[in-house]
Amino acid sequence: MPLGELFDEPTDTREELMGATYRALCEHGYAELTIQRISDQFPKSKSLLYHHYDSKDELLVEFLSFVLDHLESTTPQDDDEPTEALRSLLEYLLPTDPSTEQQQFRRAIIELRAQAATDPEYQAQFTRSTDYFQDRFAAIIERGCDKGVFRTVDADRVATLLVASIDGAMLREATTDPDHAQTAINRLHAELTDYVERRVLDEPGVTE
Amino acid sequence: MPLGELFDEPTDTREELMGATYRALCEHGYAELTIQRISDQFPKSKSLLYHHYDSKDELLVEFLSFVLDHLESTTPQDDDEPTEALRSLLEYLLPTDPSTEQQQFRRAIIELRAQAATDPEYQAQFTRSTDYFQDRFAAIIERGCDKGVFRTVDADRVATLLVASIDGAMLREATTDPDHAQTAINRLHAELTDYVERRVLDEPGVTE
Repeated sequence: MPLGELFDEPTDTREELMGATYRALCEHGYAELTIQRISDQFPKSKSLLYHHYDSKDELLVEFLSFVLDHLESTTPQDDDEPTEALRSLLEYLLPTDPSTEQQQFRRAIIELRAQAATDPEYQAQFTRSTDYFQDRFAAIIERGCDKGVFRTVDADRVATLLVASIDGAMLREATTDPDHAQTAINRLHAELTDYVERRVLDEPGVTE
Repeated sequence: MPLGELFDEPTDTREELMGATYRALCEHGYAELTIQRISDQFPKSKSLLYHHYDSKDELLVEFLSFVLDHLESTTPQDDDEPTEALRSLLEYLLPTDPSTEQQQFRRAIIELRAQAATDPEYQAQFTRSTDYFQDRFAAIIERGCDKGVFRTVDADRVATLLVASIDGAMLREATTDPDHAQTAINRLHAELTDYVERRVLDEPGVTE
């Protein structure tokens, strides 16, 4: 389920608050975000919000943790076919046709990620998410090797390249001219598909 | 020549000011940077600095442009051998043994890059740098194809994957647990070398 939909029907106060944070972040970005602007999106008592959070960063770190729990629970799970599982995870993390809301949110996530350069609480969240997705790729690749459908490769190395490319694409999407960036993401998607086919599946690279 | 050395012997007032910005940025990072802190590193008249720049962002955008000019003039140039040129450029952009100063500076660059999510002046600088390095990779690959030493490939696609991976590694280095990140960068370096060998040189991947 996309994040936006998750927040459409909150089931408790915490989900309402996380939804308010999501909407304020998509609308204003990190730099222009204030507790007041999150509060404007929050239908419940404002004092509850001000009472619990001293700063926007405190709230945003909790928001990141919440989003990551959601991503972990909705990431395509391994099915019986490693080839398909690998393609699904790549597609999930590097969408070639993102909605405007997805783009706004990914842009805000890059702003939050930059906070991790100096803030240990943010750093812990992004270490967790990076390790999680890398481990997911590596687990699929190892399973494919064990089942004999993939070539025997260093799964961690291949997973590292996939995660780094996807992170780099997201950085490019958020911080460079949007037209150039979209061309780059489409090219990267084709090249990563080809890389996986050659490296892991030992296919001749059908997308060239 | 590394940036730090460039700033050791400034030849004019502008280079002195850029050096002061570099040192203040390495020491304090973007978030904690102020015109005052740059001024503290600047040996000349403070009023000159306050007179010319209304905000730290105005000064930092000029600093980015200056750094990029320097990078463009010191990037390893194509020599006659495309294989060696490709390896040199990869080594230059993804150093496996960066100094502490290089790491501090790369961390600050990620913070500046996040400003490009909302600021068109920053965006223009990072669009320029991303396009520049991608074009450099593509030019080397095309030359190798023309000379018949590389396989015939889509040079832009390969260049896009290289740049995205390098950007992603820099993001990871700056924003996740440093020990995990260094392991990841070493793995990525090995995997990208292997990728280039398989993809462009048609070698069996000697580093596995």
